[in-house]
Amino acid sequence: MSEVAVGLDVGGTKALAVLVSRDGEILDELRTSTPHDAEGGAGAATARVLAEQVTTFAERHGLDVTTLAIGVGMPGMVRRDGRLAFAPNLQTVSGASFPELLRDSIGATAVFMENDGNCAALGEYAWGAGRGVDNFVMVTLGTGIGGGIIANGALVRGRSGFGGEIGHMAVEARGALCGCGGYGCWERYASGNGLARLAFEWASEGRLPRLTAQRGGAQNVRGEDVTTAARDGDDEAISLMNEVAWWLARGLANLVAILDTGHFVIGGGLSAASDQLLPSAREYLAELTFGYDKRPPIVVVPSGLTVHAGALGAARVAFDRQA
Amino acid sequence: MSEVAVGLDVGGTKALAVLVSRDGEILDELRTSTPHDAEGGAGAATARVLAEQVTTFAERHGLDVTTLAIGVGMPGMVRRDGRLAFAPNLQTVSGASFPELLRDSIGATAVFMENDGNCAALGEYAWGAGRGVDNFVMVTLGTGIGGGIIANGALVRGRSGFGGEIGHMAVEARGALCGCGGYGCWERYASGNGLARLAFEWASEGRLPRLTAQRGGAQNVRGEDVTTAARDGDDEAISLMNEVAWWLARGLANLVAILDTGHFVIGGGLSAASDQLLPSAREYLAELTFGYDKRPPIVVVPSGLTVHAGALGAARVAFDRQA
Repeated sequence: MSEVAVGLDVGGTKALAVLVSRDGEILDELRTSTPHDAEGGAGAATARVLAEQVTTFAERHGLDVTTLAIGVGMPGMVRRDGRLAFAPNLQTVSGASFPELLRDSIGATAVFMENDGNCAALGEYAWGAGRGVDNFVMVTLGTGIGGGIIANGALVRGRSGFGGEIGHMAVEARGALCGCGGYGCWERYASGNGLARLAFEWASEGRLPRLTAQRGGAQNVRGEDVTTAARDGDDEAISLMNEVAWWLARGLANLVAILDTGHFVIGGGLSAASDQLLPSAREYLAELTFGYDKRPPIVVVPSGLTVHAGALGAARVAFDRQA
Repeated sequence: MSEVAVGLDVGGTKALAVLVSRDGEILDELRTSTPHDAEGGAGAATARVLAEQVTTFAERHGLDVTTLAIGVGMPGMVRRDGRLAFAPNLQTVSGASFPELLRDSIGATAVFMENDGNCAALGEYAWGAGRGVDNFVMVTLGTGIGGGIIANGALVRGRSGFGGEIGHMAVEARGALCGCGGYGCWERYASGNGLARLAFEWASEGRLPRLTAQRGGAQNVRGEDVTTAARDGDDEAISLMNEVAWWLARGLANLVAILDTGHFVIGGGLSAASDQLLPSAREYLAELTFGYDKRPPIVVVPSGLTVHAGALGAARVAFDRQA
């Protein structure tokens, strides 16, 4: 039983590595840009970055790379066998098996892969805002919406390991086109990307006149302009944030109906705007949830581990799955 | 460890009772109309019917009612403590605790309650079309849509026991009003009730001219007229059944994204029209499912236990939960 594990959280822009003790303390941390060149085959460039992070930890802390428990969180459909079936935002790694790549490059033998949203759920369950809650859903509001489901005290991986892709639940059957090719996916309404889309739509329709004038045109109104203006009390921007909160609640209410979720942990970049989103979302949840008044109160809280949720969860995967 | 258990499936119109062996064989069966009078308090009239069914089995088979394992499946939100929080289609039993009522009336001490869709899932998992499949979803297409989720080999009951109310997942955020008070619930599009609603809508819009003329007006076109006409090859009716199949697939695709479900078991009254629904639904699933081509084929099969799924599952609950 290892005393420490490495958690690697690979995103579209950066790879975050943490060295973690068994009780969830971060002992060391590294941050590297994610390479996007395809040279050497699927994932080779990314694997080199990860190998360097792991060997840096090993050297600094006197650890044996060959037996070190390593968890890798990836944005995409991660198969139970550790291969990345599909990573829409990280095309150069699609198809890669990081356990194989890290074994071949640095001799690591205890490498385990998991989807990043699932990692975040496991991290929050072990050490964060879902600690001790045997039925909860992690919702990561980033560019899109990812997540992970804990039911009966265990991660819902599903048949192939693809469970928790909650952002691609359609909430508007013939709604906005999504990058996945589908229509009306939740993430087109309640993520960073959804906010940007709605901001452009509202600006084009003349519903954000002040922001549109300030930015010099509808096409220049960004999501962060809206969150900033809302924070400063701009009523147009607040209305739009309420719209996003309504859509957030719409998806959460669906998960309540399906899973009887009583506890949501909200993470990801957009959760920095929690103050603008969560109070309204909680109110809308009361309107939108099936049998709301028959249920105990539904808890919606921000992530406890914030930017480290995915990396800590990846370390947790390594602790859990090593032989 | 009991050798037999009783499974009671209480529906809006009838209560089905089965006596079941440990390997799922039905040894005896009773069918009684469900009473709808409220006399004696919540559930009292229904409890009398169930008590009679149980004592009939006991007398016929020489069983001791006080120790007999009894499972009760109910259409509604069944709390983990066995109390029915809410039963929209069976208002007179809302709030009732059948374990208490059956203990007080006939001295039964091993009575366990569960939602009827969850029972059906457990029945199919033990002895039906979900046998041995550790991640699957039971979908009961009746008047509405019920269901139950098996993940990691266990029923997803959720926080309070209300898990599996998949029919109240919204697939059209501001869509058709549902009996639950919400809008756009899946069951307003893909259940018996959804078929009836769409049939009236289509007929009113002049899209079912033959059926409308035959029945003497749009308001007389029933769901069963459409399924019958579709079976007879009427192209208007087939188009409408395809629309229902599309909506069925829309909800199934959502469940695939959320849970990575690879296997669906379709039961309930409308599943009698399986031949008109499932082939198209399987095709639409390929269009609507996130990452469809990265997944192994998704299996959509009719219930193996058909009308007995709920009652058999209730017996299974009794076997599983007795001391």
